[in-house]
Parts: sequence; C-alpha cells; structure tokens
Amino acid sequence: MHVNGKTFRALWADENRKSVNIINQTKLPFSFEIDNIGTYEGLVTAIKDMQLRGAPLIGVAGAYAMWLACMESQKSENPVSFLEKAYDDIRTARPTAVNLAFAVSLIYRTIKESDQYKEWPERALKACNDFYETEVGNFIKIGNSGLEIIQQIAEKKKGEKINILTHCNAGWLACGDYGTATAPIYRAHEMGLPIHVWVDETRPRLQGAKLTAWELYNEGISFTVIADNTGGYLMQEGKVDMVIVGADRVALNGDVANKVGTYLKALAAFDNNVPFYVAIPSSTIDFKLAEGVHHIPIEIRENAEVSEIDGINDNNKINTISIMPPGYPSLNFAFDITPAKFVTGLITEKGIIEASAKEISKIFSEYVNY
Amino acid sequence: MHVNGKTFRALWADENRKSVNIINQTKLPFSFEIDNIGTYEGLVTAIKDMQLRGAPLIGVAGAYAMWLACMESQKSENPVSFLEKAYDDIRTARPTAVNLAFAVSLIYRTIKESDQYKEWPERALKACNDFYETEVGNFIKIGNSGLEIIQQIAEKKKGEKINILTHCNAGWLACGDYGTATAPIYRAHEMGLPIHVWVDETRPRLQGAKLTAWELYNEGISFTVIADNTGGYLMQEGKVDMVIVGADRVALNGDVANKVGTYLKALAAFDNNVPFYVAIPSSTIDFKLAEGVHHIPIEIRENAEVSEIDGINDNNKINTISIMPPGYPSLNFAFDITPAKFVTGLITEKGIIEASAKEISKIFSEYVNY
Repeated sequence: MHVNGKTFRALWADENRKSVNIINQTKLPFSFEIDNIGTYEGLVTAIKDMQLRGAPLIGVAGAYAMWLACMESQKSENPVSFLEKAYDDIRTARPTAVNLAFAVSLIYRTIKESDQYKEWPERALKACNDFYETEVGNFIKIGNSGLEIIQQIAEKKKGEKINILTHCNAGWLACGDYGTATAPIYRAHEMGLPIHVWVDETRPRLQGAKLTAWELYNEGISFTVIADNTGGYLMQEGKVDMVIVGADRVALNGDVANKVGTYLKALAAFDNNVPFYVAIPSSTIDFKLAEGVHHIPIEIRENAEVSEIDGINDNNKINTISIMPPGYPSLNFAFDITPAKFVTGLITEKGIIEASAKEISKIFSEYVNY
Repeated sequence: MHVNGKTFRALWADENRKSVNIINQTKLPFSFEIDNIGTYEGLVTAIKDMQLRGAPLIGVAGAYAMWLACMESQKSENPVSFLEKAYDDIRTARPTAVNLAFAVSLIYRTIKESDQYKEWPERALKACNDFYETEVGNFIKIGNSGLEIIQQIAEKKKGEKINILTHCNAGWLACGDYGTATAPIYRAHEMGLPIHVWVDETRPRLQGAKLTAWELYNEGISFTVIADNTGGYLMQEGKVDMVIVGADRVALNGDVANKVGTYLKALAAFDNNVPFYVAIPSSTIDFKLAEGVHHIPIEIRENAEVSEIDGINDNNKINTISIMPPGYPSLNFAFDITPAKFVTGLITEKGIIEASAKEISKIFSEYVNY
C-alpha cells in the first residue's frame, strides 16, 4: 500500500538475500523508518517489542526469522541444534497469535524435509516467499469477500456515507499488505463507495490512532479517530453501519481473540443490531482449539504501556509522558475473547462463513484433521 | 477526604465570605493547587474548562456561582437583570449534568423570594451551604446503602478480595466530599473489608487514572488502573464482583447518562452476570425526562481532548503531547446512555432502588410533580 504515494509492504526480504527489512511500527506515525535485520534473534526482538505486530505479519516475520536462522546455522558447529533452538525461540516470541506457530511450523517442516543443511536457506526462503504470497493473496480475497457486504449496505444507504468502525490495526501494517479488516475497506474505496471509518484509538498502545489512521490518511480514505469508549454511543445513535476487526486467534467454535476491547464493541454491536465481522486468513484459525473463551492464552504486557504514552510535543519531537505518578499500579491484558455468538460472520479467503465449528470444519476441512 | 493526610473538600466558600476555593482538578495528580475564585464568570469558566467537574460538584459550584453573582449584582445598576443573565450563564455552562440546573434553580428561587436585592447575598449563601450539606449528607447515605451490597458480596467471598470496577471519577472530587460511586467503597474500607478497585483510566480525559486513582491512593485503598478496553475481559474471567459508577443525569425511567464508555461496561456486566450499580443523589435525576436514550443531550467537547494528553516527562515536568499528527480528525462525545435494563439498581440517599419509572416515582414522589 502507500506511504506518501510510494508503494510498500510492512516487511520484505532484502535484495541482498541476507536480511529482512521491516517498517518500524513503533515510530509511526511521526517517523517512517525502515529497519534492516540480519539475525533471527533480531527479528524475535522486533516481534516482542512490537516494531512489527499484527497476527498475520507476526506469522510472516516468524517464517522469515526461520530463514535467517537457517543461514546462521551454516556457521554453527551443530546446525541441527541451532535450528531447533531458533525454532523454539521464534515460535514462543508472543503467545496469543496462532499465525506465528502456524507459519513457523510450516517453514520448519519444509526445512526438515532435507537433511542436507546446506540446502536449508534456499528451501526456507522459497517457502517463506510462497507463504507470504499466499497470505497476501488471501488478504485480496478477504477484500473481495468483504466488499460484497459493503456493497449491500451501500445499496440500502443510496449514496449516503457508509460508516465502518474498526478496533486496533488489522491493516496492511499488521499483515504485510492490504490487511484483513481494512482489505474490504480499501476495495470499497477503490470501487468508489463513500466509506468513512471510525477508528478506535485502541489504548493502551494506540494502534488505531497511530497506525490505522496513518494507513487511511495515506490512502485518502475519510476517517475519524475516537476514544475506545465512544463506539457504543455511536452505535446507539445509528452512526455505525458495520464493524470489521481482525483477530489474533479464532478457535474452532468461532470464538475470537483480538485486541483487548474488541469484546466490548461486539456486545454493543449485538445490542444495536450492527453487523460485526471478523476478517481473517485461515492461518489465524486454531483448528486444534475447540473453544476460545477461557482457553486462548491472553498475553499480559508490561504496565508501562498503560502508564506511559508516546507522542510529539510542540517542537515536533517525540516524547514519552507518564499519565500517572510512578508507582500507581496498572495491569495490561493485551487481548480479549469475543464469544462466537456475537460474531455476524468471518470474512475469510474462502468467503464469508458463520463463526461456528460446523461451518469452519466444513470450509477448512483440509486443516481440521491436520 | 484526605490529601497527604489532611482533610479537604473539592470546593468551599472562603472564610472571607467573598469568594470560593476549588481544588483545580486539571492539575491533578501531578500538582495540588487551590484556586480562589471571586466572580460567577470565573466559576463558570472553571466548570467549562473542567477545573472542577463531576455532576454533583457542578451542581454545588453552580449554586455558589449564584451566590457570587448576588454579591456582584450589588454593584450593578440593575441587580435584577444582572442576576437574570448570571442565572442563564451558569445554568448552561455544561449541558448533560442535570444537577446544575437543579441546584441553580433552587438557589434562584430562594433568592427571588425576596425583592430586597441587598438581602440576596446572605440568602444565597445560606441556601448554598444548606444545599451543599444536604448533598454531602446524601453521599454519606449513599455510602451506607452501597455498603450493604458490598457486605453481601463479602459474605460470599469469605475474606477474599472484593473487586469493584469503576469508570471515570465519581469520587469526592466529583461531589465535594465522599463521592457517589466511591462512597460505598470508602465506607467498606472504613469497615475493614478487603476492597480492590479496578480503575478504568477513562479516555479521553483520563479522570480514572488521574483523579480516582489519586483519591484511592490518598485513602490507602488498593487499586489497579486499566485501559478502558480491559473491563470486559476481567468480567469474563470472574475478576469483577460488582461495578459502581456515578451518573450525570438519570431519566425517570432509569436510563443513565454517564461518562462515555459506561454503556460498554454495563453491557459486559450484563453478559457476565456482574451486578452493575449507579450511585446518585436525587439531584442527578431528571424527573421531567421520561426516557434517557436519544433524549439526554450529550455534550461534544473539543477534539484536542482526544488528540492531546497531559502527563509528566522524565524531569517530572507537566507536558502535553499529541498522539496523532495535527489534522487527523477526531470526535469527542463526553457521555453515553446506559438503558435502564442493564442497571441492577440505583444507590440513592433513600436506599437501593430499581432503575424504573415506577420505583423512582414512588421513592421520590415529592419531586415527580415538582
């Protein structure tokens, strides 16, 4: 997608075929910086510190981290044990997004098909590129599927603005390209539909205000940033036509783990008959997990994300402030779980499906017995 | 209540009987400043700029602003028209809290019982003091009523921590003394019950993180500040025993206007069978308004409250940062409305009552035909 009119992905293998480039998302929207990372541990740190984030992108980054590990293993005395350790380190970088385990396992299996460790880097890079392109293809399909829903709303609204609320960032930054929740929005905008996006600022890390708003600004799409508290009132007043969010993990029964606060918006959507969609590639579905509520591990991140906020001061310099005196206790659950009953549908690469074990098992039968 | 061990109210008539002192709430928790205000317009500005806030305190401040206006009217060529203008200016300082209109009208009627304008200041001051003491008495009664609910929970939990979630600040700062939502918490703490408070930070203005947390810290009550997005997950996981919030206006049918985001917490409480109580003095009930949803006017405040945040930097200096580039659009509804069906009960000076027209009319029959 676009940054000041130029086309970018959120992550790409460097032309030198020795390293990975990422857009450093902790610097946005105030500074656009590309980091070049040449070790798997560097990429693991980037995942942990959220220089890159978003479940699908974490999956892609985990894959490329395996590729970097393969290259590094060549210089190791024991390439096999080096790779095993890297596999563990990468897979466990963050706990909630299932895409990470999915992608890393995929690359790992591909590598291990050969016992010639010299072949590993080439095999891994090809598998990474294939996986990445498949994912991007899935985001395009998600965009097309979601477009149908928006078109139906557009017909009813007869030229009036279509108001879509989204939480956190499930945009191209979170995915590499196009995004999940944003893919239908970008497609609808491309088709000339009059879209307006309510962007939940998404405390504590403000991914809505800092990333989603920045994406929409760069694409020229109309948006308004709101405090996370506001969406319920907007829905009561008929100012939201649909909600689209992404997810970090969807259980087989359709329960959705996504950025903390998603559940509250799902409740409000349900109470006001606003359709609530979750846009995901199948790599986000945990086919082995029967139920999500109480079962998907929820990451607890550091308190400073609640108590400290980054922004720019009057001199346009990036500054960190504390909103509370030091020592005031805080707690930072990064995700919550929306029960499937509040989900109108899942927007997937295979179309819009019901958030239920029956439907997920039917549509993605190849993975269920995986 | 306490500030560094000393006892304060949020507002009081100065000993000189010529002015009003207020704790400047925009400076908390980083700086404890008392402002002395000698004109009604000064007090109106303090209300508008939220140097003082909270529906009950706005009522009290509006009353004392009428007293200041009475004193100022003495030097005016036309005391009657001076007072009429002041009455309008004060009553309309902020739109949502009904306490303001209630208190200002009460003082206005008392003043107008005399056509001797020389008598006005004395009459007004007495009426203000009476009103304030009645309100404070109501908060004490609210504390005692709410205590009963907490004691019932305590019995079930057999010595385990009792977790109460609150949104925004309906504490002593919002009321003058004791608070509404906090009054039962302070009483329970006094009685030695093991209370822990989940404090919603309450974006955009962060009254939870900045005011409620500061109050609880000063009273030595255990608390944890959380992003507004977090409460739903906590309730799903059984980590919230009850919710208590205040209100800016309650309609006759029990619909509750309170700080934006309250509705989302009420939905989550309902979905998880967590009792959701609204603590209010009768001055917060709009007896003339049959229904709240779509009918209580919701204040839209300036966008900068969303895009800019105050805090302290590394050097302990208060600093304002922008969380988004200038020009990113935002919108700032200050309140939302929780339908009565999600309210377990109203904690009032006359006990705990059902949030319904029938019950409110019965218990407060003296006001309904007012």
